[in-house]
Amino acid sequence: MSHDGLAGKSIFLCKPDTKPLAASEYEEFLQELPDWNIMMYDGLPTLERAYTFKSFAHALAFTNRVGDLAEIANHHPALLTEWGKVTVAWWTHNIKGLHRNDFIMAARCDALYHAWE
Amino acid sequence: MSHDGLAGKSIFLCKPDTKPLAASEYEEFLQELPDWNIMMYDGLPTLERAYTFKSFAHALAFTNRVGDLAEIANHHPALLTEWGKVTVAWWTHNIKGLHRNDFIMAARCDALYHAWE
Repeated sequence: MSHDGLAGKSIFLCKPDTKPLAASEYEEFLQELPDWNIMMYDGLPTLERAYTFKSFAHALAFTNRVGDLAEIANHHPALLTEWGKVTVAWWTHNIKGLHRNDFIMAARCDALYHAWE
Repeated sequence: MSHDGLAGKSIFLCKPDTKPLAASEYEEFLQELPDWNIMMYDGLPTLERAYTFKSFAHALAFTNRVGDLAEIANHHPALLTEWGKVTVAWWTHNIKGLHRNDFIMAARCDALYHAWE
């Protein structure tokens, strides 16, 4: 599966009884997202990556584009905007863990960044 | 000094030999900024506040307005945008601590938020 392949998958409505993915289940996705890391916050996994830019304005512009992707998918990340850097974190709040949707959104962010550079 | 008073002060160029403020020196500023807290990260103080909003889009719009303030002042915060929430953090990178500028920018953010509500 190509990088674009994951980015092009559909986001599905995540019901409250959906189980979060186990680490063994998202291993394959991570191979397609080499710059992303699983970070643990309060015992819950989050999919996280930092992107670098040449200014604050460029970083904020990227934040806005990721915000657009999030609004379209109705799935929202945490976006830390700093001078020359945006850190994006995905997780699925209502299942308290990671869903396939999070990896798809991560791949869409990478595609956005690749087009940006 | 009123809240607006601090927000209306000028931002000064911060030279590398400028000393960061000691806690006793910014106590007065904090009295005007009751919703802000001093957070320690890697031993360095940061001035931080979270603002709440009714949606992701509203939070991102506020992030952009704070970004505008930052660009105008050429002094940039860290902005964590989440669904319905923006956490703003100010500090002065080149003096590894807090400068009067940080408190002025915090007051400007509060003024922006008050006009928003």
